[in-house]
Amino acid sequence: MTLPFTRVLIIGTGLMGTSVGLALRKAGVEVLLTDTDPAHLRLAVSLGAGVAADPDDPSGPDPDLVIVGVPPALLGSVTATALRRHPRAFVTDLGSVKAPAVAELAEIAKDEMHRYVGGHPMAGSEQSGPLAARKVLFEGRAWAVTPHPDSAPEAVAAVEALATACGAFPVRLDPAEHDEAVALVSHVPQVASSIVAGLLANADERELILAGQGLRDVTRIAAGDPALWTQILSANARPVARLLHEAAERMHQVAITLDKLDGNRPVPSDHPLRAALERGGRGVRRLPGKHGARREAFALVPVLLPDRAGELARLFADVGESGVNIEDVRIDHSPGSPAGLVELAVAPDALPALLEALERHGWTVHG
Amino acid sequence: MTLPFTRVLIIGTGLMGTSVGLALRKAGVEVLLTDTDPAHLRLAVSLGAGVAADPDDPSGPDPDLVIVGVPPALLGSVTATALRRHPRAFVTDLGSVKAPAVAELAEIAKDEMHRYVGGHPMAGSEQSGPLAARKVLFEGRAWAVTPHPDSAPEAVAAVEALATACGAFPVRLDPAEHDEAVALVSHVPQVASSIVAGLLANADERELILAGQGLRDVTRIAAGDPALWTQILSANARPVARLLHEAAERMHQVAITLDKLDGNRPVPSDHPLRAALERGGRGVRRLPGKHGARREAFALVPVLLPDRAGELARLFADVGESGVNIEDVRIDHSPGSPAGLVELAVAPDALPALLEALERHGWTVHG
Repeated sequence: MTLPFTRVLIIGTGLMGTSVGLALRKAGVEVLLTDTDPAHLRLAVSLGAGVAADPDDPSGPDPDLVIVGVPPALLGSVTATALRRHPRAFVTDLGSVKAPAVAELAEIAKDEMHRYVGGHPMAGSEQSGPLAARKVLFEGRAWAVTPHPDSAPEAVAAVEALATACGAFPVRLDPAEHDEAVALVSHVPQVASSIVAGLLANADERELILAGQGLRDVTRIAAGDPALWTQILSANARPVARLLHEAAERMHQVAITLDKLDGNRPVPSDHPLRAALERGGRGVRRLPGKHGARREAFALVPVLLPDRAGELARLFADVGESGVNIEDVRIDHSPGSPAGLVELAVAPDALPALLEALERHGWTVHG
Repeated sequence: MTLPFTRVLIIGTGLMGTSVGLALRKAGVEVLLTDTDPAHLRLAVSLGAGVAADPDDPSGPDPDLVIVGVPPALLGSVTATALRRHPRAFVTDLGSVKAPAVAELAEIAKDEMHRYVGGHPMAGSEQSGPLAARKVLFEGRAWAVTPHPDSAPEAVAAVEALATACGAFPVRLDPAEHDEAVALVSHVPQVASSIVAGLLANADERELILAGQGLRDVTRIAAGDPALWTQILSANARPVARLLHEAAERMHQVAITLDKLDGNRPVPSDHPLRAALERGGRGVRRLPGKHGARREAFALVPVLLPDRAGELARLFADVGESGVNIEDVRIDHSPGSPAGLVELAVAPDALPALLEALERHGWTVHG
């Protein structure tokens, strides 16, 4: 693949900026790095994400593309400075919210902003900082590319090429449309997860011991960085608030509905409580799974795993011998268990071969 | 292990009842099965969960223990009938809510209820019915055992032995305490997941393509059976409503807080939005992980996996050779990806051996 850039400057070496640097280095691109935090910069350089550049040296090498990977609150001003300092470069960013930066640039860098096109790779982690970075973070993920009306077509092409070079697939949206979408698929789920997890903060240990996998899944992302998420949510305040009001109102209605119920009577099938649960089922079934496939397209095979070194390896060696491709794996976390349960997902037509292989090697599968 | 029962009757062959039958058969216990749905009963028998019994035949074999696995709305009446029909047996159930059944029994089976002790295995699935049953469903899980003040100690011991025979660990709670706990760790997360997923029901495809792993985790349990969950939630209406009101109110407060924000100013660290996110972080860190360990105790190693048959098998064969015990595996679902990302979790002291093995076999790991 010939890229429309050969030298890239990444401003900000957190999780996202460092991961982009690692991915671009792998693609053979020259990467310059800067960060106001010298410890982050040193770490990113030592991880192989690029070489340190001096942002105040006007005689330094000139990038074709500048990637701004700073917290949301700084995005507009840092991007404007980048446009001014690098008058030949296209400029993009990795921010989670797009419309406010465009509005700010229209005020402070109007004449330069044709060279700016926003970007947002849909990948992340509940961890942060350069140490959590991975060059494969963006593999197979969507990367929103958000031109504004004045964006130059060459700038759009450069950002789409950046997404592809990092292993992602570009999805073009206008900035406001993007912000509405991420409010729905990322920001509101984050708040909901934090609120459910927040109920656990003062719970009894005796209550928490009853926690199962469902609660763990719902609350996993609540472990994310509160400082960063405060900035993201406040930058996208209006779309997030609108959906949160709607979700809070629906939750409140379910609570009121439950208050009114007589537990001894059957709940009619057109009851609002049931309608809310059915609506949730319809929503989750719309989510694309691996390769766009729906998860229910796979056959799920639960296998009991003794908790000894090498058992998982032995399982996969035995499965591998059968030539069956495992599409997904899930391991249950069971407190206090002497054994684990591994759920293998395979294409339905591969099921007989998998079951045969498991049986032949003595694995315990539910029949 | 010598069990205090040799012949068990399971009333109701759904996911839970059939799974108990499979687990008890494996433990060598004689299992009789009944169900008002003959198709479910036939399926459970053919899966090996036990033999079909005729509930209307008084000369049939007499059980020592009766396990009631029926939907919440029927729990009290079916349990009362079981106590009357089997005057020598202990009776327990698998219901998700405990206090209402005890209250109902105190009205309709007062003189028999010393032989009843509630039970609730903390395991399940977003699927339902006997086909989703597994004999290992309860391995390593908590099994709430909920005696009431009149429960006979022998009945409590029998239900705790049942939990252990199925591979679970018994946790003794009184019925009301249990219902409060499951409202927190199971019922409210279920509603929250359904409400977040419900927002997706009418979303644009273009918005959904931006969905990442976080949204998938938060909404997975929203795929559960709405009819069953309506019954569970309405049976535990008061504790669930109280916590849902609290969660809805917190969500509403976050929304109001966002409405008031000026996106261009930094949010102070004592702001209510940030406080809600920090509280969520504290909550999720309290959850016990595998074997009671916290997940952050493991080192996480991301490995890039080409999407070809046998690659996962080859990965685990290579890892297995190193003797490293994999504690957890997570596979990212990436729509449209030519490759997948597998995250291996290992004990920190096993990390060097794992990295060495991966490198030696040519796997792509972020350094």
